[in-house]
Amino acid sequence: MSGRVLSIQSHVVSGYVGNKAATFPLQVLGYDVDAVNTVQYSNHAGYRRFAGTNSQATELDSIFEAMKKNGLFRANRILTGYVPNASSLQSIANLIKWMCSGENEIMYLLDPVMGDDGRLYVSPDVVPVYRDVLLPLATVITPNWFEVEILTGIKITTMASIKSAVEKLHSVHGVPHVVISSLPLTAELEAEVAAVTRPAARSNSAYSGDNLLCITSSASAAKEGPVSNVHAICIPRIKGYYSGVGDLFSALVLAHFRPTEGSEALSDATTLALSTIQEILLRTYEHCESLAEEERPPTDDEADAADAERRVRRMRARELRIIQNMECIRNPPRERCMARWTGFWD
Amino acid sequence: MSGRVLSIQSHVVSGYVGNKAATFPLQVLGYDVDAVNTVQYSNHAGYRRFAGTNSQATELDSIFEAMKKNGLFRANRILTGYVPNASSLQSIANLIKWMCSGENEIMYLLDPVMGDDGRLYVSPDVVPVYRDVLLPLATVITPNWFEVEILTGIKITTMASIKSAVEKLHSVHGVPHVVISSLPLTAELEAEVAAVTRPAARSNSAYSGDNLLCITSSASAAKEGPVSNVHAICIPRIKGYYSGVGDLFSALVLAHFRPTEGSEALSDATTLALSTIQEILLRTYEHCESLAEEERPPTDDEADAADAERRVRRMRARELRIIQNMECIRNPPRERCMARWTGFWD
Repeated sequence: MSGRVLSIQSHVVSGYVGNKAATFPLQVLGYDVDAVNTVQYSNHAGYRRFAGTNSQATELDSIFEAMKKNGLFRANRILTGYVPNASSLQSIANLIKWMCSGENEIMYLLDPVMGDDGRLYVSPDVVPVYRDVLLPLATVITPNWFEVEILTGIKITTMASIKSAVEKLHSVHGVPHVVISSLPLTAELEAEVAAVTRPAARSNSAYSGDNLLCITSSASAAKEGPVSNVHAICIPRIKGYYSGVGDLFSALVLAHFRPTEGSEALSDATTLALSTIQEILLRTYEHCESLAEEERPPTDDEADAADAERRVRRMRARELRIIQNMECIRNPPRERCMARWTGFWD
Repeated sequence: MSGRVLSIQSHVVSGYVGNKAATFPLQVLGYDVDAVNTVQYSNHAGYRRFAGTNSQATELDSIFEAMKKNGLFRANRILTGYVPNASSLQSIANLIKWMCSGENEIMYLLDPVMGDDGRLYVSPDVVPVYRDVLLPLATVITPNWFEVEILTGIKITTMASIKSAVEKLHSVHGVPHVVISSLPLTAELEAEVAAVTRPAARSNSAYSGDNLLCITSSASAAKEGPVSNVHAICIPRIKGYYSGVGDLFSALVLAHFRPTEGSEALSDATTLALSTIQEILLRTYEHCESLAEEERPPTDDEADAADAERRVRRMRARELRIIQNMECIRNPPRERCMARWTGFWD
């Protein structure tokens, strides 16, 4: 593969989230990466203790202006992730609008990083910028279920609500390709997808026992027939919470996506991304297990509240092992593929 | 290889200098890289037109403080490059002093980026910080000839002056390992090194015809005998000027250096670094030649003065092809090795 990606995300000195999680995999897969850092922090916010500064909109504007004048916006793929506030996001939106109106065909992957598990972790005024300005420009979006809820205003609780949300993203917001990266697999959902995809049978002490569902949906070109082509896969969840997984995921989907390759293009790219990620998570888990016990205290909010260093040690132990696993970025193991969900729209 | 490098340099959104030139090669060679960005610019200053901001000393201090508290200074190798001003450099110097006084053995490669070809391109008040605070902490330094002159106060014109400068770096400034990355090969010098190393016989339209000399010098542990072990190699210069070569070089020397492997350790590392660099430069030159003629105007200061875009096009065309040549980072071609210069101190 080759090409150039403009990646606009956070930078952390230590650890792997934002551009630190995205840049290396994209480069290993052959892309030049023009990396705009929306913040420079010591480490990710999950440590609770962190320091650094946000890039201001005026700074971003002046960098973009110089790059325009120097003819340096040569990327044909754009990736955006965490942006801390609405003014910076607006500056980025202006740039992307300009790039998309140019001569080059642009593939824009928007990861609308806003929150997780029902908690918003950006300033609320970024929401309308994502929804009204950036969604219409995106080729692919990779929200988690909570971000789907924020963007569509639809609570994702039932099969019917998932359909409504996906349909709304395609038809109201005009997004051609939607990837919902991780839906908790409720009993209803599990029954619905049972005929399409089942959790991996393989047992492994790294698996927590519950599963996540990943869905891709590419809008149909045809006026007749279903709204979109849908694929799905069930993934066994690995014990523990790891930061930066979403950032790594969106970078890998963008890297592998070849939209000219037909109706399976998005699910193929997502299969490759998930294969790499599952492998990196397993190896990160194993690394973590190999550490001395006091270096990897299990999640326990009460114990963390009593001892802040406890959380810090856990965060440190769980940093993604991206560099050590370059080979599974270059050659994803691809054990299981996403399956076509033919009855999704029935 | 594995390990962790703390790399403190500039960040450019587009192109390959500073951390953009250093991080990917270090990662490909197996190192986790904790990257502190001393600036965020649109592109390198050689374009003349650029925008962005410098990280302030207070910002660096607060990032370092959070990382200390979070136990995130786990690197056993440190690399420093371009730092725009003395207050930031002092903040970095304080950190390195602290790290070097800790329990871990630290290998610190100091690239005293101050200028080239007789021209200083940092604020003059950084010079005493490099000379008085950082030199005594460094394991390896990789100055060019002009930076050797600034650090030692010795004009490098004759064989005798090179000896004096290298001796001063070892004995007065206490630097164990010195690499002078590129000395213009004067007639006197050429005669002196003729018995040690000769320019490559291979002719190639990419070569300009003149040669550069690279010298490594590792201080002797023994009290008796010569000051140091010296190695040298003559390298045919490739046509054109390419930015970021020094940054790539210092990162590769640091990556390959295994000081426990005896008196050839530094020259071995430098051989590997130079092999990769010469290959990347050749491929960058070839890429440049493959572009339309108007995209690669030759160096011509007068023509540049009349048309600023001319210089911008040249800079764009000459960005190092690092990503495309990952293989020659992983497996340096190693056609020619540095040769021991036994008579250097005679």
